[in-house]
Amino acid sequence: MVKPVDAWLLPDGVADVLPAEAARLESLRRLLLDHFGRWGYALVLPPLMEYLESLLSGSGRDLADLTFKITDQLSGRLMGVRADTTPQVARLDAHCLPSQGPARYCYAGTVLHTRPMGIAASRCPVQIGAELYGHSGVESDIEIIRLLLDALAIAGAEQLHLDLGHVGVFRALAALAALDGDTEASLRDMLTRKSLPEWREAIPARVDAEHQAALLPLPELAGDISVLAQARELWASAPSAVAQALADVEAVIHAIEQSHPHVVLTLDLGDVRGYHYHTGLVFSVYAPGHAREIAKGGRYDHIGEAFGRARPATGFSADLKQWLAFSQPALSAQGILAPIGDEPLLREAIAQARAHGQRVVQQLPGALLSAGEAGCDREFYFADACWQVRAVAS
Amino acid sequence: MVKPVDAWLLPDGVADVLPAEAARLESLRRLLLDHFGRWGYALVLPPLMEYLESLLSGSGRDLADLTFKITDQLSGRLMGVRADTTPQVARLDAHCLPSQGPARYCYAGTVLHTRPMGIAASRCPVQIGAELYGHSGVESDIEIIRLLLDALAIAGAEQLHLDLGHVGVFRALAALAALDGDTEASLRDMLTRKSLPEWREAIPARVDAEHQAALLPLPELAGDISVLAQARELWASAPSAVAQALADVEAVIHAIEQSHPHVVLTLDLGDVRGYHYHTGLVFSVYAPGHAREIAKGGRYDHIGEAFGRARPATGFSADLKQWLAFSQPALSAQGILAPIGDEPLLREAIAQARAHGQRVVQQLPGALLSAGEAGCDREFYFADACWQVRAVAS
Repeated sequence: MVKPVDAWLLPDGVADVLPAEAARLESLRRLLLDHFGRWGYALVLPPLMEYLESLLSGSGRDLADLTFKITDQLSGRLMGVRADTTPQVARLDAHCLPSQGPARYCYAGTVLHTRPMGIAASRCPVQIGAELYGHSGVESDIEIIRLLLDALAIAGAEQLHLDLGHVGVFRALAALAALDGDTEASLRDMLTRKSLPEWREAIPARVDAEHQAALLPLPELAGDISVLAQARELWASAPSAVAQALADVEAVIHAIEQSHPHVVLTLDLGDVRGYHYHTGLVFSVYAPGHAREIAKGGRYDHIGEAFGRARPATGFSADLKQWLAFSQPALSAQGILAPIGDEPLLREAIAQARAHGQRVVQQLPGALLSAGEAGCDREFYFADACWQVRAVAS
Repeated sequence: MVKPVDAWLLPDGVADVLPAEAARLESLRRLLLDHFGRWGYALVLPPLMEYLESLLSGSGRDLADLTFKITDQLSGRLMGVRADTTPQVARLDAHCLPSQGPARYCYAGTVLHTRPMGIAASRCPVQIGAELYGHSGVESDIEIIRLLLDALAIAGAEQLHLDLGHVGVFRALAALAALDGDTEASLRDMLTRKSLPEWREAIPARVDAEHQAALLPLPELAGDISVLAQARELWASAPSAVAQALADVEAVIHAIEQSHPHVVLTLDLGDVRGYHYHTGLVFSVYAPGHAREIAKGGRYDHIGEAFGRARPATGFSADLKQWLAFSQPALSAQGILAPIGDEPLLREAIAQARAHGQRVVQQLPGALLSAGEAGCDREFYFADACWQVRAVAS
């Protein structure tokens, strides 16, 4: 047995959520799920563990590293504790919910990560998200981004930056240049790390002369929306997939400028994070005071393939705990303190108050709480043959 | 990679919660947490994983077997995915929330079990529960049981049976008979399995003659509340701890008869399940059509000891998924279907409807849903220069 002083230590990146914060978390959780519901997104609750192959289907190496492995004693097979809910929703859409038309799902639940995904990141985030299956047009990307931006407004987030990218750009240019798998992977890695010096050495060394000009400026095509015009000029003769990607980005910019004019839009056409997983438009949202993005998402049209049903999909996810940093309205502690006793009149008075939504804390013999300790601003007192409520003298 | 047909298979005792059921689960979760809140129980959210020693502190072998072990890559130490929230709340009460007086906590969250805890039991139950720390009198046991019975009424449970026991009875009789550890453990095991033939052989063989009479009838002291009178007679000269246990049981019977006259009360004084963990009154609730208990709990006064703070505690826990079997009011699918389009008037009409709490599903180009597929009973239409809502012709 460990010493008492050690037993309460928690692992790094793991923390309790104590009452004041838990009440805020629960309140925000309800607000957001109700918001998703009003947009037609149905709550689904995939299980916290399942077979590892299912959890990692269609995703990349990153997710495998992040996932805790456990052995199923019943089958002897390897299971995982989910590190991401997205592949689970893909499985659910492919198998459990066969619907021909678009299907909208949302979720909110804990995931576990073997290591923190960023500075000060929790290893037990409460992942919330929404997914739109069955539609490949940019209209569903726009719906998902608007759903997210409205969710962030509900959470009290302000001064948001929406960063847009499109993995189709690099994908099409790499195909055009007929890059072999190793070269493509290595270039993608440089883009992810935004390592400009390596990129500038690698392009002339590893890409055919005629395709160098199209690829070389890619990591620098990041900034405000004027980047879009630069890109159009640069890739005027590029394959139609590039033009389509730029048209999608432009449609999103236009739509968000209309609906969310206060959100600052930026582009990063060399953004290939989640490249294995994503297939089209990708986005991240940033807020002042947060080093990491506060939400991210994008299109991942083939994710259901491993489950026998590859259909288009777009969505986002975020850590609800991270969103607690935004300023939600404070929840005030109110309640009625009730004295010790179990006589019918008092019992009935307490039950009535609770039935009307009041919080009532009853005293226990030998362990009296003050009104402040009990979080109460009122108290029961007996007068005129019945129990009545008055403010606690402060 | 597994074949598509396999990838969607889930392990035994693991299941998705699909939209209709997820909506009911979320609704019930909110009703119950709000109920706990009205009784003064503050929500806490301990983490899903922590060091194994902490998770298993003060608990028995059973919990160790039920807990999935994982390795912390950051520290190299063994962690566990919680199989029970109760020891976590004890840690929290001991360390994070130092309060002198009684403290009331509630929780709702997934736990994982290596094997199902009973027939048709989930290995990913959503454990809900409430705990009252800092008070050792029977009044807190009564409060916890009433809180539970009212929670079950909210969940729509009917025809409840409350089964009461008290581990103090066997504990005191074992101490009186000066049983060695092995004998006590072996007898306890027989009680748990309710193996009457073994018990009847073991008592004469392993207990001093003068203490046999007090122990022998123990497994049979189960049934309606008339058992209490039998027990009083049988143990008239037993140690005061036995008399105190019986007095506590009687006080609970009296209180519940007053507040919940429709609940059928039964006793099982040989109930020693959770003996390592529990220290006093224990209880289980049963409902028709459920082979397993639908909630259980009791007193576990020393559970905080491993965390440096042993104070009295009582509480209960249950699986929210199991409670879905009770008949809650059905949730009706309602909503307004909106046409394709992003012109300002339509966008505003949709936003307004959602701001008023309406569910609005917007069509996507090339993938139209019928009102029924979208779960909508109304639709937007344009007339008199504005967007209006009408019922969908059925």
